[in-house]
Amino acid sequence: MCGVIGMVAREPVNQALYDGLTVLQHRGQDAAGIMTYDNGHLHLRKDKGLVRDVFRTRHMQQLAGNMGIGHVRYPTAGCDTSAEAQPFYVNSPYGISLAHNGNLINAEELKRELFLSDLRHINTSSDSEILLNVLAHELGRSGKMRITPDDIFDAVGEVHRRCKGAYGVVSMINGYGILGFRDPNGIRPICFGERTTDMGKEYIIASESVALDVLGFTRVRDIAPGEAVFIDMDGVLHTRQCAENPVYSPCIFEYVYLARPDTIIDEVAVYKSRLRMGEKLAGKVEREWPDHDIDVVIPIPDTSRTVALEMANHMGVKYREGFIKNRYIGRTFIMPGQTLRKKSVRQKLNPIHLEFKDKNVLLVDDSIVRGTTCQQLVQMARDAGAKNVYFASAAPPVRHPNVYGIDMPSAEELIAHNRTVDQIAAVIGADRLIFQDLDDLKDAVHYGNRRIDRFDCSCFDGEYVTGGVDSDYLEGLQAERGDDARGKRKASAEAGAVSLHNHR
Amino acid sequence: MCGVIGMVAREPVNQALYDGLTVLQHRGQDAAGIMTYDNGHLHLRKDKGLVRDVFRTRHMQQLAGNMGIGHVRYPTAGCDTSAEAQPFYVNSPYGISLAHNGNLINAEELKRELFLSDLRHINTSSDSEILLNVLAHELGRSGKMRITPDDIFDAVGEVHRRCKGAYGVVSMINGYGILGFRDPNGIRPICFGERTTDMGKEYIIASESVALDVLGFTRVRDIAPGEAVFIDMDGVLHTRQCAENPVYSPCIFEYVYLARPDTIIDEVAVYKSRLRMGEKLAGKVEREWPDHDIDVVIPIPDTSRTVALEMANHMGVKYREGFIKNRYIGRTFIMPGQTLRKKSVRQKLNPIHLEFKDKNVLLVDDSIVRGTTCQQLVQMARDAGAKNVYFASAAPPVRHPNVYGIDMPSAEELIAHNRTVDQIAAVIGADRLIFQDLDDLKDAVHYGNRRIDRFDCSCFDGEYVTGGVDSDYLEGLQAERGDDARGKRKASAEAGAVSLHNHR
Amino acid sequence: MCGVIGMVAREPVNQALYDGLTVLQHRGQDAAGIMTYDNGHLHLRKDKGLVRDVFRTRHMQQLAGNMGIGHVRYPTAGCDTSAEAQPFYVNSPYGISLAHNGNLINAEELKRELFLSDLRHINTSSDSEILLNVLAHELGRSGKMRITPDDIFDAVGEVHRRCKGAYGVVSMINGYGILGFRDPNGIRPICFGERTTDMGKEYIIASESVALDVLGFTRVRDIAPGEAVFIDMDGVLHTRQCAENPVYSPCIFEYVYLARPDTIIDEVAVYKSRLRMGEKLAGKVEREWPDHDIDVVIPIPDTSRTVALEMANHMGVKYREGFIKNRYIGRTFIMPGQTLRKKSVRQKLNPIHLEFKDKNVLLVDDSIVRGTTCQQLVQMARDAGAKNVYFASAAPPVRHPNVYGIDMPSAEELIAHNRTVDQIAAVIGADRLIFQDLDDLKDAVHYGNRRIDRFDCSCFDGEYVTGGVDSDYLEGLQAERGDDARGKRKASAEAGAVSLHNHR
Amino acid sequence: MCGVIGMVAREPVNQALYDGLTVLQHRGQDAAGIMTYDNGHLHLRKDKGLVRDVFRTRHMQQLAGNMGIGHVRYPTAGCDTSAEAQPFYVNSPYGISLAHNGNLINAEELKRELFLSDLRHINTSSDSEILLNVLAHELGRSGKMRITPDDIFDAVGEVHRRCKGAYGVVSMINGYGILGFRDPNGIRPICFGERTTDMGKEYIIASESVALDVLGFTRVRDIAPGEAVFIDMDGVLHTRQCAENPVYSPCIFEYVYLARPDTIIDEVAVYKSRLRMGEKLAGKVEREWPDHDIDVVIPIPDTSRTVALEMANHMGVKYREGFIKNRYIGRTFIMPGQTLRKKSVRQKLNPIHLEFKDKNVLLVDDSIVRGTTCQQLVQMARDAGAKNVYFASAAPPVRHPNVYGIDMPSAEELIAHNRTVDQIAAVIGADRLIFQDLDDLKDAVHYGNRRIDRFDCSCFDGEYVTGGVDSDYLEGLQAERGDDARGKRKASAEAGAVSLHNHR
Repeated sequence: MCGVIGMVAREPVNQALYDGLTVLQHRGQDAAGIMTYDNGHLHLRKDKGLVRDVFRTRHMQQLAGNMGIGHVRYPTAGCDTSAEAQPFYVNSPYGISLAHNGNLINAEELKRELFLSDLRHINTSSDSEILLNVLAHELGRSGKMRITPDDIFDAVGEVHRRCKGAYGVVSMINGYGILGFRDPNGIRPICFGERTTDMGKEYIIASESVALDVLGFTRVRDIAPGEAVFIDMDGVLHTRQCAENPVYSPCIFEYVYLARPDTIIDEVAVYKSRLRMGEKLAGKVEREWPDHDIDVVIPIPDTSRTVALEMANHMGVKYREGFIKNRYIGRTFIMPGQTLRKKSVRQKLNPIHLEFKDKNVLLVDDSIVRGTTCQQLVQMARDAGAKNVYFASAAPPVRHPNVYGIDMPSAEELIAHNRTVDQIAAVIGADRLIFQDLDDLKDAVHYGNRRIDRFDCSCFDGEYVTGGVDSDYLEGLQAERGDDARGKRKASAEAGAVSLHNHR
Repeated sequence: MCGVIGMVAREPVNQALYDGLTVLQHRGQDAAGIMTYDNGHLHLRKDKGLVRDVFRTRHMQQLAGNMGIGHVRYPTAGCDTSAEAQPFYVNSPYGISLAHNGNLINAEELKRELFLSDLRHINTSSDSEILLNVLAHELGRSGKMRITPDDIFDAVGEVHRRCKGAYGVVSMINGYGILGFRDPNGIRPICFGERTTDMGKEYIIASESVALDVLGFTRVRDIAPGEAVFIDMDGVLHTRQCAENPVYSPCIFEYVYLARPDTIIDEVAVYKSRLRMGEKLAGKVEREWPDHDIDVVIPIPDTSRTVALEMANHMGVKYREGFIKNRYIGRTFIMPGQTLRKKSVRQKLNPIHLEFKDKNVLLVDDSIVRGTTCQQLVQMARDAGAKNVYFASAAPPVRHPNVYGIDMPSAEELIAHNRTVDQIAAVIGADRLIFQDLDDLKDAVHYGNRRIDRFDCSCFDGEYVTGGVDSDYLEGLQAERGDDARGKRKASAEAGAVSLHNHR
Repeated sequence: MCGVIGMVAREPVNQALYDGLTVLQHRGQDAAGIMTYDNGHLHLRKDKGLVRDVFRTRHMQQLAGNMGIGHVRYPTAGCDTSAEAQPFYVNSPYGISLAHNGNLINAEELKRELFLSDLRHINTSSDSEILLNVLAHELGRSGKMRITPDDIFDAVGEVHRRCKGAYGVVSMINGYGILGFRDPNGIRPICFGERTTDMGKEYIIASESVALDVLGFTRVRDIAPGEAVFIDMDGVLHTRQCAENPVYSPCIFEYVYLARPDTIIDEVAVYKSRLRMGEKLAGKVEREWPDHDIDVVIPIPDTSRTVALEMANHMGVKYREGFIKNRYIGRTFIMPGQTLRKKSVRQKLNPIHLEFKDKNVLLVDDSIVRGTTCQQLVQMARDAGAKNVYFASAAPPVRHPNVYGIDMPSAEELIAHNRTVDQIAAVIGADRLIFQDLDDLKDAVHYGNRRIDRFDCSCFDGEYVTGGVDSDYLEGLQAERGDDARGKRKASAEAGAVSLHNHR
Repeated sequence: MCGVIGMVAREPVNQALYDGLTVLQHRGQDAAGIMTYDNGHLHLRKDKGLVRDVFRTRHMQQLAGNMGIGHVRYPTAGCDTSAEAQPFYVNSPYGISLAHNGNLINAEELKRELFLSDLRHINTSSDSEILLNVLAHELGRSGKMRITPDDIFDAVGEVHRRCKGAYGVVSMINGYGILGFRDPNGIRPICFGERTTDMGKEYIIASESVALDVLGFTRVRDIAPGEAVFIDMDGVLHTRQCAENPVYSPCIFEYVYLARPDTIIDEVAVYKSRLRMGEKLAGKVEREWPDHDIDVVIPIPDTSRTVALEMANHMGVKYREGFIKNRYIGRTFIMPGQTLRKKSVRQKLNPIHLEFKDKNVLLVDDSIVRGTTCQQLVQMARDAGAKNVYFASAAPPVRHPNVYGIDMPSAEELIAHNRTVDQIAAVIGADRLIFQDLDDLKDAVHYGNRRIDRFDCSCFDGEYVTGGVDSDYLEGLQAERGDDARGKRKASAEAGAVSLHNHR
């Protein structure tokens, strides 16, 4: 998962892009980058780290210009080294930069094609560099000295034809403007907004509408699946549907966990969808366990608060914030001669004993992935004196890997992989475990916008909306994404295996 | 406000002190430091910045030893430059280091005395350096080659006699052990705990008990007002009351806002005291405004959640998290030729429109100091569609400056200074404003421990428990603490006015 | 002036490239960079600063691979900002990187052409980026999947046709090998060498042969004017003359001042040429001033030692090192409220009074450019007690700007511009001033290799060997290179005007 | 060996101290520090590294005030960790800082005494911290509120009584002024100078007179052995002989190698003494080898140039600079999986083949210590084609360790230890080896100032002027200073064993 932003304004965009990336920071804390255009020149700053650490005054001074794009990165397979922060850039044709949220599933094949068709060297293992070069190649095919929005949209059409997977993209074409587009399934979110100033209209494109709110832009709408929007350097907006058979299939996990509650994706307010998840989950408890003895509902901060509060309201049970989140998290240092002690959940959350002591507590979280945190939380609740500890998940069991850009472990590391609900409850040590039903989850979101065709629920049901994800593909993924593989790849990257980025 | 920690263990303390400071980080984000003792040598690392930024692996490797103290600093008058991070150190006698939470009100007088009595040069404007030198002087008076815990406690007694103000202190005496002590009024909190390991007992002293919890120590008790505890290098605990007439007078603001909810101060659980504040505040609303039309209670995150939830419960009104906190806050850069735009509250909090639209909302905060944030929140609520916006404060109006170590503006900058409640409501734009009554606040805390003699409520009632704070003193403070004065001092400090610290 | 290096080896090249750049550091202390190729991936590190400051262990670890190129930069017009360190890179076709020593005089025209012919965006104002894109365009024209050395040499031939000016270039073509080539006049030096290891032959290309010596390579020969050499990834050397009418016209200033004495350029040992310059200069003194009263010859360290010693030998006058060079030079800090005091020559050179006291001294320097240093040295000699101070320059008066990559002031800032020798002597305060005659200088170098057709002596005689340097061009240069212009450009660059480089 | 400087001026001293340290940088490149006094406050900046790297603009801004001291450090036994840069500081009494050039031989004993007599904790293994505390203790004994120059001189007298060894010291007493003093043997150099400005007189104290020259001060004279000079804050100079039986016994190695040629120590111009060394050495060659066949004399740059040139003049043999020094030296990086290759002399010096080819060359160096460099130089000369390679040393064989602050290997690592001249010649591979006779060396220096009583020539003759250096002491030194011991100590230091310094 990553966050992207792009802006064409009437005054310098550096501070606004920076602020926007800060608002999108929850989508990726691993790396950040901004590229701006000023009077024929491009300016770039990107590096590993949080937005607040990557950009210093000297960088901001360099990032001149009224147009630019930005990116925050969450490390997924194939982009967890320091060398692959975004945006990426090619100088031919025109000078094009690009930032991408999502994941391509035919990256290897495209990389081979690119070299054959256009002699283009891809220097990193990031699929975003591939996406940029496909776009660049398609844009350059005409060999036109001046291109029109239609030339650009034609190129996006070719990108849709060649690239399979999930992508919400912003791209800056030197001397032309800013382009935003979304894969034909609309898996990853991206929207655009506008603002009127004394000097004229300004446009923004971003992964989540909350970035628009905070920067004072009005949300116009989501970019439709397959659609592209282009804002030229005069500030004129152009849009076109560039895909042949788009199907509206957004990722349901955005609503469960990824997106901020105060954002709107595909016309559905994330906050409202979570209230409905809480309502549905309360319904399931009352339906399946009418004589429950729950004394108090306690959320696992921060995401699950909305769900848990509404759940408590519907069940008529007390809601209490029994875990206090430690806002400052430190590192664990490796000292010579000492063994590394793992940071426990205890250093992130601390229980208020009063709220557990001699009570039957229902802990509510948004989802259960590996289950290690759950297990520790249940134990903490018991240590704090709880009589019985129940656990509820606003999402169904996660049983399949994600291939569309969400960083998740391989299938075998998922606690729900090949386990029944009772078995999972036993592993995490809960006295009872309740998962949301998938249909309830879908309903909770779908209710907000009936024009959505379907959801990508692949983590839950193993159905991948793009097609092309077969068992071979998933086995390859397993090999590359398991913790072991990850460790090895990281070591290799740190020993110098990867990139053209100007190493710091 | 600051946080202090000290530890005598059976294995290296660097990681534990680091983790402890992280847990205490809410008490000060301005600077951090750790000093350890290892085999006759002292090791120090301190600098401006968050704990996670100040300590790198190379520093941790240097911070060898099984005994050490640490500090996180919140900038108050006289310690807002980079040069005055703590702990402080003197090499004569013995080699003593010290970290301090609080503020002395007779610092200037002590500084003069110190030079006259002991030729000691105080190089910074920090009262903590003064406190250290008073302690060092008193310890050195005997000229003894070997000192006993009683010699140390005698010296603390002299410190109590000479120093006026608030102080929770940890000090490390080279070759002897770790000392903790608290001013005779017990204004600032400090407690100690223990842990049993295979190698023997380990002790910890810290500003808040939550640090003990997270590190796996058991809280023994608070250090009593005027008391000192000393853990020698063999891990043996010694304690003594060193003050002549201690009066139990803790600062009530710790409960309102400063301390973490999951901490216990002077036997009172902060969380519980806040629940009672919510209950009392609900009572006042129902008493004074029985026919209120409040639709929803909305907390200002994070502190006021506990108060607001309990208030809503007692009033039978819906509780909703209407503001989403932006967890990542960026800077505003000063660009050549651009005017600085102030970061608004908008970049810290974003409203969920649904929860405001056409409703009468009651916003609840822990306290109102300058009022500027309140004003913006009220406006945000209106912009989000609220019909009426009411505001409640869990604390009474803040009308007087704090002289015991809490960073507060000068009297004239306090919104409640010389204003009635109605006038304040008018300034912040609220349709109705409710403040907690001071007696209710006191009751809410006192209920948890009737052995507390009284509270320092000076911010609310202007009564300073130490005595010695007259109008002359406050005028001096005004001169030094006003925003103008602060700006000037900062400029001067940055131009090189202050310290012996090894500037980075 | 810059230094370039390239290497195809049988083991990692990072340390060797680093060491080589250190040896070439005298050619540029402004910025440094290395790019390596490893198993299909390129690795880059470049930044402002000395070699020893730019490369840290973490960078060296990243710079994996047995093949790579490097660059040290001396700031000339159009490359004095932090953003334009070399090597430069384009990913299409093949992935090509390039480092360049010299200067193009038709850069603006080429930049326009590049956009028209290939839609290539040039993002910096460096002519090296232009040179790279011309090469890339010519290489990509065929659209071949696999290229041969002949394809590469054909492309160099086109570069010669299109680019006017001075260039010694190393370039790395991803998956193919390392290319070195030199402009058809051979203005800037570049040579290559070989080394036999157990694993096979290794090749190096570098600006000066001293880099080969220190790294243990044997110098094969200079690259001829217009020639290209290509070492493929199997370590096989290919060479071809790629220019139509090359004329051997090396820059004579390399011998006077730029190159290290222990280097060999175009078969002429720089050291020997300097001995001959000393001999010639002695001859001129004896011819024109047979009854001179010089007591001692004193060099201005370091360059002129060789000339001065041989001059003294030939004149039978004592040679003494009367100035001691301060090896460590610090900065002058700008303090608020203080006026900047210029670093004087005094902080670089300190006189040994004994050697001046009551003597007639002849100071010898390699050349006189602005004359400010001369003036101070003459004054220092007088202050140290010299009776008469004479001055000799191993080069003729510098009267014209350099357009081939040597950083020199504009014509108007040259002390010899529109001044006679007597007038110059008056300005610098010397009792007598002797310049080398241009023919003597040419003879001193030419003697070492009669196959050189001519020299670029444009600084002395205003004849530019490439043609195309007319008064319009020089006026443009004046506008851009004067101190005022430079200051403005620098300010603008620092405010963010330039580049795609990943700003640090 | 280290360099010290102190200054009392009428305007800020930061830039002047910085410039002075730069001039003294040849005395120590390991660490640097400056402490200034401004209006009752002390400011400090010190760290490992060269002067140009340690001080940035922000540090200079902090180093306010018209009075200050500075230090550059060469690592000797007991000060080779990052934690022990100077100046050192104690706050009691008065606030005293100190910087020291030299070495105490009774440091351990003093450290014990200090704790017994004054409870003073010494936190580092630096003898300079001990020296400071002895001074502080003696100054504080009187307990006087105001001290006079005589009190200060009395304290220096006590320091002389207690401390054995070599010391040139500057010390700053907060609120009083700057003190300089020298051990009663005057082993290490220190001098002072003055400058008259519009605002009054200014004084400087420094290790070498060249610092005075470059800063525009006039050298007054050396501080005499045992003498102290004190410049109070009004700029008034006070001096007194504080030792009982001073004996003028400067270190002869300063003239051979340590000091800059353009400095004057104890009234002897180093440059002139080196000319005389050359003359003496020429005499010895002609005396002992009248029919020598030397074709050319070649110095090993930089130090031996003066000696070699005069030697050549006296022998009537050609003098040539056959080795070119590489001014930029890089690091050797340790790459995973590669073995560390030692930097050879080849990367520091490169031969001009012409000057060696078929010639009998006499290489001249200032001294021979370990002999490893000599060996490589002789081999380089042969590789460059020399027929015969002779070697001359301006100093006699170094056979004993230095205990007065010069960093030299232990006895066993000295090439001349237990070897005859012929044996040494065989080891370094020279066809003939000539050492200066010790009497000639003494004469060469003594000639400049007959009032010097004797020289410390302990490296050559094993006679230690302070007494107290017996075989036990030297064995202890051997244990601590051997390369093995050094490696271990360094590892331990880096693992965190040492200091109170604020680790960076």
